[in-house]
Amino acid sequence: MTRYKMTMAYDGHLFHGFQKQPNQRTVQGTIEEALEKMTKGKRVVVHGSGRTDAGVHAKGQVIHFDYPDKAGKVIPAQNMMLAINSQMPTDIVFFESEIVDQNFHVQYSTKGKWYRYIVDQHHFTDPFNRFYTGHFPYPVNVELMREASKDLLGYHDFSSFAASGGQIVDKRRTIYYVNIDQDPDRKEIIIDFIGSGFLYNMVRIMVAALLEIGNGKRPVHDLKRVIEAKNRQEVRGTAPASGLYLYHVFYEEIPEKYRLDHKIY
Amino acid sequence: MTRYKMTMAYDGHLFHGFQKQPNQRTVQGTIEEALEKMTKGKRVVVHGSGRTDAGVHAKGQVIHFDYPDKAGKVIPAQNMMLAINSQMPTDIVFFESEIVDQNFHVQYSTKGKWYRYIVDQHHFTDPFNRFYTGHFPYPVNVELMREASKDLLGYHDFSSFAASGGQIVDKRRTIYYVNIDQDPDRKEIIIDFIGSGFLYNMVRIMVAALLEIGNGKRPVHDLKRVIEAKNRQEVRGTAPASGLYLYHVFYEEIPEKYRLDHKIY
Repeated sequence: MTRYKMTMAYDGHLFHGFQKQPNQRTVQGTIEEALEKMTKGKRVVVHGSGRTDAGVHAKGQVIHFDYPDKAGKVIPAQNMMLAINSQMPTDIVFFESEIVDQNFHVQYSTKGKWYRYIVDQHHFTDPFNRFYTGHFPYPVNVELMREASKDLLGYHDFSSFAASGGQIVDKRRTIYYVNIDQDPDRKEIIIDFIGSGFLYNMVRIMVAALLEIGNGKRPVHDLKRVIEAKNRQEVRGTAPASGLYLYHVFYEEIPEKYRLDHKIY
Repeated sequence: MTRYKMTMAYDGHLFHGFQKQPNQRTVQGTIEEALEKMTKGKRVVVHGSGRTDAGVHAKGQVIHFDYPDKAGKVIPAQNMMLAINSQMPTDIVFFESEIVDQNFHVQYSTKGKWYRYIVDQHHFTDPFNRFYTGHFPYPVNVELMREASKDLLGYHDFSSFAASGGQIVDKRRTIYYVNIDQDPDRKEIIIDFIGSGFLYNMVRIMVAALLEIGNGKRPVHDLKRVIEAKNRQEVRGTAPASGLYLYHVFYEEIPEKYRLDHKIY
């Protein structure tokens, strides 16, 4: 058996999320089917760094799997990637591949995750970006959003930002970095979050709350109060899945430039 | 009756082309249904500057229609556009609107058309651009394509570049301008064509031929011979619909900077 770690991008809009489910088209299911073909019927389990929901995209999802060696021969990492890519539908592509030892686990070895959210600010949805952005046509003051985002940094109980349905009891996480950019030509707002981990729907709920602040619907430092409240009812909105990208998974230490949380304590 | 001229963008990938067809989702059919709702059942015919095929996109398609005045009141052009946009699915958006006189006809008043073709050069298709580019993973020399494109400029019989099935007998057209750009970051080649008009599949056949030249499959000045031959068999390829955009329709004179055809005669 050889363990492969691979990095991939996918367009989530025609998948029912990452995780395999019966009778649904999923990312994990699609890859496992391809591997089963390649091994001529041997089952190969694909592990992901984490799930992504239906409609959510990835620019840097990471998986690992153990592939049976054939007569003691190991397939080189690049050849394995080409072989898998040629089996993939056009909404999945692998772009990095390496052989790792059995101690590496794509979920448990993570040091952090980077999510990106792209907001489309056109009055009417941009036809070419409707599957790849979340539409919010109302005016926003990005400076207010930037100020508000500082309240998310650091180690907090994020219960107010976790959709019900998750099975995780400990809702404490660290957010290391939030950055908010505006692209006036494309009428987009790009919000990056780097953290130790994220709860179910957490990024989409944070985006909804930040947009409400930018739109003047909440006071600029309301997120302090919302975090304290530990109550999901404090933020009702959830930004659409279409704008969300799993952008990068850190197996290296989070670089110092992304440790804004250090600067506030 | 008031005649409105409107400019629109659409994502063609879920439409069976512009032109209305029974039991198919088309751009024209979608707009006419919306207008019929707005007039409470009166039929309003939508005229387009020309058809686009299934999967072909528009960044600047133009339509006109005559809208019945209600009690002598004319709806201002901007209000009409907002009303229609709010009826459109998210793959269509209107962004310019004006009232024109009855002499204006969106098809017969054109002075020229601008098509853009975007080639994706990734080894495997980019998942986020698979509906919005044509995939060509083979190496190309863009300089050869630029040199070859000069042979298309001017007034020619383009029979060799017309798919069978068109009903047009006179296949003489003028190409005013061809420009080929490369975007190394996005691994894209962007090819612009401006001409007096284009035959059925003509842009996609020209793109296929230019890529064959860039790839070394044809001599650089082969298009001279192909044009002379007036035979569709000379170019078998047709680049995929997904990369093609109706980019702009000229009702003004073609600007001098786009009249490269003047420079070669």
